[in-house]
Amino acid sequence: MGLSAFALNCSLKSSAESSSTEKLLDELLFALEEHGVSGHGTVRIADCDVRAGVTSDEGSGDDWPAIRRQILAADIFVLGTPIWLGHPSSHAQRVLERLDAFHGEQDDQGRMVSLDRVALVAVVGNEDGAHHVAAELFQGLNDVGFTIPANGMTYWVGEAMHSTDYRDLPAGSEKTHAATKLAAAQGAHLARLLAGHAYPAG
Amino acid sequence: MGLSAFALNCSLKSSAESSSTEKLLDELLFALEEHGVSGHGTVRIADCDVRAGVTSDEGSGDDWPAIRRQILAADIFVLGTPIWLGHPSSHAQRVLERLDAFHGEQDDQGRMVSLDRVALVAVVGNEDGAHHVAAELFQGLNDVGFTIPANGMTYWVGEAMHSTDYRDLPAGSEKTHAATKLAAAQGAHLARLLAGHAYPAG
Amino acid sequence: MGLSAFALNCSLKSSAESSSTEKLLDELLFALEEHGVSGHGTVRIADCDVRAGVTSDEGSGDDWPAIRRQILAADIFVLGTPIWLGHPSSHAQRVLERLDAFHGEQDDQGRMVSLDRVALVAVVGNEDGAHHVAAELFQGLNDVGFTIPANGMTYWVGEAMHSTDYRDLPAGSEKTHAATKLAAAQGAHLARLLAGHAYPAG
Amino acid sequence: MGLSAFALNCSLKSSAESSSTEKLLDELLFALEEHGVSGHGTVRIADCDVRAGVTSDEGSGDDWPAIRRQILAADIFVLGTPIWLGHPSSHAQRVLERLDAFHGEQDDQGRMVSLDRVALVAVVGNEDGAHHVAAELFQGLNDVGFTIPANGMTYWVGEAMHSTDYRDLPAGSEKTHAATKLAAAQGAHLARLLAGHAYPAG
Repeated sequence: MGLSAFALNCSLKSSAESSSTEKLLDELLFALEEHGVSGHGTVRIADCDVRAGVTSDEGSGDDWPAIRRQILAADIFVLGTPIWLGHPSSHAQRVLERLDAFHGEQDDQGRMVSLDRVALVAVVGNEDGAHHVAAELFQGLNDVGFTIPANGMTYWVGEAMHSTDYRDLPAGSEKTHAATKLAAAQGAHLARLLAGHAYPAG
Repeated sequence: MGLSAFALNCSLKSSAESSSTEKLLDELLFALEEHGVSGHGTVRIADCDVRAGVTSDEGSGDDWPAIRRQILAADIFVLGTPIWLGHPSSHAQRVLERLDAFHGEQDDQGRMVSLDRVALVAVVGNEDGAHHVAAELFQGLNDVGFTIPANGMTYWVGEAMHSTDYRDLPAGSEKTHAATKLAAAQGAHLARLLAGHAYPAG
Repeated sequence: MGLSAFALNCSLKSSAESSSTEKLLDELLFALEEHGVSGHGTVRIADCDVRAGVTSDEGSGDDWPAIRRQILAADIFVLGTPIWLGHPSSHAQRVLERLDAFHGEQDDQGRMVSLDRVALVAVVGNEDGAHHVAAELFQGLNDVGFTIPANGMTYWVGEAMHSTDYRDLPAGSEKTHAATKLAAAQGAHLARLLAGHAYPAG
Repeated sequence: MGLSAFALNCSLKSSAESSSTEKLLDELLFALEEHGVSGHGTVRIADCDVRAGVTSDEGSGDDWPAIRRQILAADIFVLGTPIWLGHPSSHAQRVLERLDAFHGEQDDQGRMVSLDRVALVAVVGNEDGAHHVAAELFQGLNDVGFTIPANGMTYWVGEAMHSTDYRDLPAGSEKTHAATKLAAAQGAHLARLLAGHAYPAG
């Protein structure tokens, strides 16, 4: 059965600039393809106008409703973010705030509209912070209805207080590649199970 | 298919004292039973001698090996903890440290020994901190191989700086009961899927 | 000696709407006045155009440079935020990202430009999350040069999964008022010490 | 005026084994000495029997009362911890739980008994997690009455998923040394101010 993934890149930089987060997301989407998951592209929040708020539509000019549709159209939601001050980027937190609206929305079986979807997390920084960023994202995504596969995170960070970027490593990192492959294999497996066997009605 | 759950209570208090965490764990185990999941009892870390360390056996007198066997014998691992200073209790962090040993252990298919198991989290405090505690536990448990079902947490906390305990609420809390039921229904569903369809070989 | 405070309100809502964060900030600024600290008003990020980025000036139309000047003109920086999904608001994280630029800026003594300034934190939510939000803000603010007085936080949150807003409590909360007074007294004391005795040259 | 510092090492290993946390604590205590702060030794929690609980004395055999006296006898409290699963060690959380008792204790002026003391944090890991560990410790320590000087943290972590230990770096890390010196200079300055000008009565 064909599955699909949709990725959001929460880099602070628009597509005019290269992004380490994009590099890691590309690697994760490629790894997912090897498990029969077709990527439906990556959207950079910095290219969009995602309005502040906690509803699913903050009115004219808000780019969130289109992004929301793409999230709900996919089986796997891949959330990629850089680390700033040890935290998810403000764009990543903005995404969580907009997803919070799922708490007030139900499908025709009385379930959260996001159910049966798997979330994976990709985190990149010069140094330090990936596990905490994953903790924030896992808890936020789980709260709004996503399921987290075992080892559902891939990441790269450098040594303390250094300034290398992941996009500057031509071969990436072997350890990161292994984490990416594991997250993809397990994410695809779980998404396939849930696509065939939905959570019970509410 | 019959499933089983094993619960750890990370209260700082031994069984000689009543525990709000125990009350919430009892409610969660009861809710799981309604979905065909038999509880195999609850162990309180405060009653045991779980040694500091990051291996699966810290030597003579260490109670962890027996607890570890019970975790691995069950389909669902329920981790319950009180909130202290906004964090998981030191007993809960001790449990995560001992689970960290899974990173060096593989089953006969080259997979983490904990795979195919679902984790649920139950958090209780006088006030404030449940979401952060869940974030810490979800990320730690996911890192050592557990899968987190959608809405995989139940909790109760009171108003800021108040001192009511969950065990002092005779009827508990309706909202907490609803969260407990949802976590149980979705945790049982996911555990059943994974029991029948294991993650792929490593 | 007269001291001054500057407050940022990181509510997702503009001034067109009432804000619980504003109520708590007003109470904290009032308490600071009783210790000789004059408030220089409160700015709501939602009223401004604070651009994404990690420099002190992201170009034409960016409202951050004016806000940055107000932060540096004051002895006490008060950062107020609501809680969303257990985290600081995306506006609060945006503020931290812009403050990150301080790492590349020095005063004429080779010190961070923010040194000798005290930070206080005010956190409000319907339920749960204040301590973790304070943790994120304390660590971020400390990293960019602010000093945190003992008990440097005031907050209000309601019972788990309830929906009361702080602005709906006519008398606020006695316990919150006590925390506010303590944070103000200790913040003013520390700011006065640092205003008279600057940290050493770098 | 002579100042004193007291350090706790929350490594999971006893003094029978070498500790990266100890190396970083030694460097920080040495840096403090250059600012007139005499170290009163370092205690390893793993060598002690610090009982689980949230009072200042958990009864016969509890080593906490002696540690508590040393904390209160010093002007600067240095809390050092390794990172496990991205979190402070269980020993560090145990220390915070015991410090929580300060909420119920007052000096003869109605103030928290810990007031006028500065806290510094030293964090070490193979990879990733120092900022989050600092966030947890800053917030916990601030909650129980400690003041956090600007840049009050030093740390070292290696590249993602690598296994180098700080104690294996003969020369340590230049960047870590700079952070250590800054934390020491600013911590000593602030402790000196507070030793001469106590926070106001409660």
